[in-house]
This record gives sequence, structure tokens and C-alpha cells, in this order.
Amino acid sequence: MSELAPLAISMGDPAGIGPEVIAKSWVAREEHGLAPFFAVGDVRAIQAVWDGPIARIEDPSDAVRAFGKALPVLVVVDGGEIVPGKPDTDGARCALHSLELACGVVRSNAAGALVTGPISKAQLYQIGFTYPGQTEFVAERCGIAKENAVMMLAGPGLRVVPMTTHVPLASVSGLLSVELIVSKARATARGLWRNFGIENPRLAFAGFNPHAGEQGAIGREEIDILVPAIEILRAEGIDATGPFASDTMFHPRARTGYDAVMCCYHDQALVPLKTLYFDDGVNITLGLPIVRTSPDHGTAFGIAGQDVANPGATIAAIAMASDAVRHRSKLAAFGT
Amino acid sequence: MSELAPLAISMGDPAGIGPEVIAKSWVAREEHGLAPFFAVGDVRAIQAVWDGPIARIEDPSDAVRAFGKALPVLVVVDGGEIVPGKPDTDGARCALHSLELACGVVRSNAAGALVTGPISKAQLYQIGFTYPGQTEFVAERCGIAKENAVMMLAGPGLRVVPMTTHVPLASVSGLLSVELIVSKARATARGLWRNFGIENPRLAFAGFNPHAGEQGAIGREEIDILVPAIEILRAEGIDATGPFASDTMFHPRARTGYDAVMCCYHDQALVPLKTLYFDDGVNITLGLPIVRTSPDHGTAFGIAGQDVANPGATIAAIAMASDAVRHRSKLAAFGT
Repeated sequence: MSELAPLAISMGDPAGIGPEVIAKSWVAREEHGLAPFFAVGDVRAIQAVWDGPIARIEDPSDAVRAFGKALPVLVVVDGGEIVPGKPDTDGARCALHSLELACGVVRSNAAGALVTGPISKAQLYQIGFTYPGQTEFVAERCGIAKENAVMMLAGPGLRVVPMTTHVPLASVSGLLSVELIVSKARATARGLWRNFGIENPRLAFAGFNPHAGEQGAIGREEIDILVPAIEILRAEGIDATGPFASDTMFHPRARTGYDAVMCCYHDQALVPLKTLYFDDGVNITLGLPIVRTSPDHGTAFGIAGQDVANPGATIAAIAMASDAVRHRSKLAAFGT
Repeated sequence: MSELAPLAISMGDPAGIGPEVIAKSWVAREEHGLAPFFAVGDVRAIQAVWDGPIARIEDPSDAVRAFGKALPVLVVVDGGEIVPGKPDTDGARCALHSLELACGVVRSNAAGALVTGPISKAQLYQIGFTYPGQTEFVAERCGIAKENAVMMLAGPGLRVVPMTTHVPLASVSGLLSVELIVSKARATARGLWRNFGIENPRLAFAGFNPHAGEQGAIGREEIDILVPAIEILRAEGIDATGPFASDTMFHPRARTGYDAVMCCYHDQALVPLKTLYFDDGVNITLGLPIVRTSPDHGTAFGIAGQDVANPGATIAAIAMASDAVRHRSKLAAFGT
């Protein structure tokens, strides 16, 4: 993986805000010092919401030269009519093909990292998509079991890992296990080293129950599952601490004490992250052979085509992907 | 209840940070425009951590005159030796007597509102205290069933109500019911009117599951419990909305859309509140005949006596109590 290879950004659903935030990120490329990138998708989706310069490219290698003067677009497919805010199955097919191609050019090293734009799962399910989300799709294309791909959400001052994700909250207690937690934490520790250059990352575990269970008085998941997992991790030399009362873990002073919080359920991770960083949260997948990031927001069909979408999260996702490529290159140079 | 009556502040555990933050609040009284108040507790607990002027008073009515030049203290009991950071059962007895007396003078209208300092439940349980916390104790002394006393946590830009509190997270789904939610929301709407002067408060409900269940795809508590409760409340004329995905509810723009968030479980309420307002969160009990607030922190034995405790939450609790008394007086003047 070369630092000179441009980044590939899949456009996501053409009727969502993906095309707009990609175009706005290109406009902000100098202000934010962004590395060269190219969009992958239907060029008409961008033209529908933006009248800036576009360079159609045939090959990722053309992107770097074109990037200074125009937004490079690797054109995927011409589907049906594209109307911002009006998703349809043609758009879902276009989003899927964009993702497939973007993933492929990164796997083949023609592009340096993958940034994925927001898709509509509801639309994709209508055309037979069977993955819970893009993360699992990308993991499979990389030959990685989805259990070993770890979703981390990151803002400028907080990184969180939800150890369970889109499952009913009442089922989480039954899904948590020592094995799951140890596996997620190992992948997180390794991922923080490879993608962020943090050699001995500090992982803080959030308790499952209020006040982290108060020594078993209000719930036993801490005693039965979290503490044994943390002990195993510490024995392996991983800097794992907790479990802590989750309501005390996310204020500014507390956030200086760790590199990432391992959370038991979706909202334990996502509520603090989005409370603090709603407009610039990034989703990064750890445990993959490639670098993959994504803005942590959806298609936002309701505001598509109105020129009001905030590109902050996409800009942050591009910057984080470039940084991760740089960190990995350094490790590769040392043979690790 | 007269606006001229001073506020009573129970000192909490004498070995905790309660005495220090009360003294520091008195020092800051002019800077923050605080209404006159007096402490209730063992005067030696304050002397152990502060060398400012103290006025021992025999009766709450002496507090207003004394307040300008010294911290008025209504002395409760002389227990054993007081060592900051070293709690014992003598201290627990002192804390309980302070709470009992402070509650009594407010009930009798000798004081205008009750602010409670932090207690140690572990110590209180050793001397036979049987309440889950101070809230339930105060509710009983006011003749209110504890189910009808609602805990609201408030920071400068956010109010949250945990509809269940110190219970195992895995049991919350079974505890949520339409009846519970309707009852908590009614008390909250009424409490926001009486204590904050908000005539038609906007209550936003947080979903229980990730993404508020995605129409039942990841959990049914929204469909089976929250939606029916919200419909009942709306039929009563209460401005109730949701359930919303909780991770999207607490960023700055979202917070302008409601007056309080009704949360399904402890950490759903406390994580965003303490992430944003760790040092100045206030606990206010709605549904009582008296005004009762409390700083939203514990005894912090680990830092007691080191002069590092932050009085921000106590100052905010005093100010909120005064404001609530003012709002109630206005309503009383109109005969409501």
C-alpha cells in the first residue's frame, strides 16, 4: 500500500447526501490538507447537486493528477433517473456497484484506502443485499470473518467500540461473553496500533449496569463477564481497565485517561460520541487488511439536494484514512 | 412558602466533600447572586476543611441576617471525631440527623427549599437506613409515595428523567410499562411547570433499543410500550414526542427541540448529562410539596479535605432551588 495511491470514496446511495458531501470535501481539500481521492459512483448524482468541475477517470492512477483541478470520478453505472431525496432500487444497485468497485480497487492496491458513503439498507435489502451493513460486506470481500471486524467510532477527542451493535437491548446481556469481549479488545488494541500508531493503547471498559453494578448489588454482568475478560487481557499485557460506571467516563477530564472505551451496547457508545461529535464522527473498521473509514451518518434523504449537508464527517473520514495509511506504512517499513 | 425564607442545605456525610462545597458556595454567594441559605449539620465538619467565618444559629430565621458576614450553620449533633475522607457510622448518624432536620424545617416553612448534600448509602445502611436514597426518604417525610416522586437531572442546557433508576439493565425491559411511563411523564410535565415556569413543556422520549428499534426490527419496546404511552399523553394535551433514536437526541441542535428527555434507563439519562455537565449537574425531585434539589455527585471521600472539590453543582443546586421557589410563588399568587 503506497502513500501515493489516491483514496477511493464510494458515493453511497445516489439520492442521499453522499454525492454532496464528497463534492464539498473536494472543495475543502486545501483548507483541510486532504490527500488526493476520487469518488466511485454515478457521475450524474454529483452533477444533480453540484456544478463544480468533475474529471471522469478510467483508472485510479489518473486521480492524483486530476485532483488539483477537478473532483475525479470513477464512473460505475448509468442507472435510472436520479432525484435527490427520492431513493429507488436503481439507486441501490448503483450504490452496491460503487461499493464493490471501490472495495476492489483498494484490495488491488490501486487505491490506498476505502471511504464509504452512506447507503440505504432498506433499499439494498429490496435488491437482495444480505449483509447487516457495509462493514460486513467489506469484511467478506477482504476474506475476514465478520466477527473479527471491529467497528470503532471516533471523534476528535473520543474513540468508542460497541461490542454488540444492532440487537435488541434486552438481548445484550445474553450476548456478552468473556470470549466476545476478549476478541473485540484484542482487535481494538491491535487496530489502535496499526491505524493510529498507539503502541500500548489504554482500553477502558464501560460497565453494563448503572454504577457498574455496585459490586453486584445492581447486576452481575460486571463480575461474571467483564472482570474475567479484563483479567485475561491484562495477563496478555494489554492495558485494560474497568469496568467503570459509564456515566463518569465521558466528561473532558475522564477522556484523557484512555485511548478507547469498550462499550457493552450500541447506545452506550453512540450516545456520548454523537452528543459530543454529531457532525464529525467517523466509523473506522479495525481488523481488516485494508483501511476503511466512513462518515458516521446516514443518507439523510430528507435534506438531500438542498445544499445544507455538512461535509465535516466525510472530511474527517478522509483525513483519518490517510493517517491510518501513513501509520501502517511506517509499521511496514519496520517489517511489522 | 415565602421567597424570604432561607434555603436549608443538609451537609451530607461529614467526612465527604459536602461541608467543603457548601463553604465554597457561601464564598461564591455574591458572584453567583445566591439567595441566603444555611447549612444543617455538625459545625466541626466545616471547620475541619475551611477556616472562614461561621455563624451558629438556633433558628432558621436567624440565617438571613447572618448570611452576609458568615456561613450560618444550624448545628445538629456532636458525634465522634470527624476525619475528612474517613467515613464511619457516627458520621452516617450525623448525616441522617442533618437530613431529617433540614427536611423538617422546610416542611414547616421555616426554610424555603431543601438542598441535600451527598451521603454515603453504604454507611447509612450500616445504621439501619432502609431507603434506596435521599429522594425516597424526603418523599416519605412529605407524605408522597415514592413512585410519584420523579428524579430529574439538569444541567444548563439539558434536563433528563430516568424512568427507571438503580436496577440491573437486563431487568429494565420488564419494568417499563405504559402506566409507569404515563405516570412519570405527567409528573414531569407538571414539575416543569411548577418548578421551572414552563407552561406547556415539550417532553421527548428516548427509544429503548438502538435506532429506537427500527420499526420493530431490533426490539419491540418502542411499539409495545413507548408509542402507546405517548399516545395517551398526547390525548391529554401533553406535548410528548418520540420515541427517537437516543444517540441523535443530545447534540446541541437536538437539545433545542425539547424541555426534557424521558429516558428508559439510568445510563441513557446520566451518560449524556454527565458527559456535558459533569461539574454542575443538579438533581431535582419533582412531585413533592416542597422544592428539593441536590448536587449530582457523591461524597468523593477520595478527595475530601484536600480543598480541590468543585462547588459548581452545589451552587447550581442552590440557584435552581431559589428559582423553583420563585416560580411556585408566582403560581400560588395566581391561585394555581
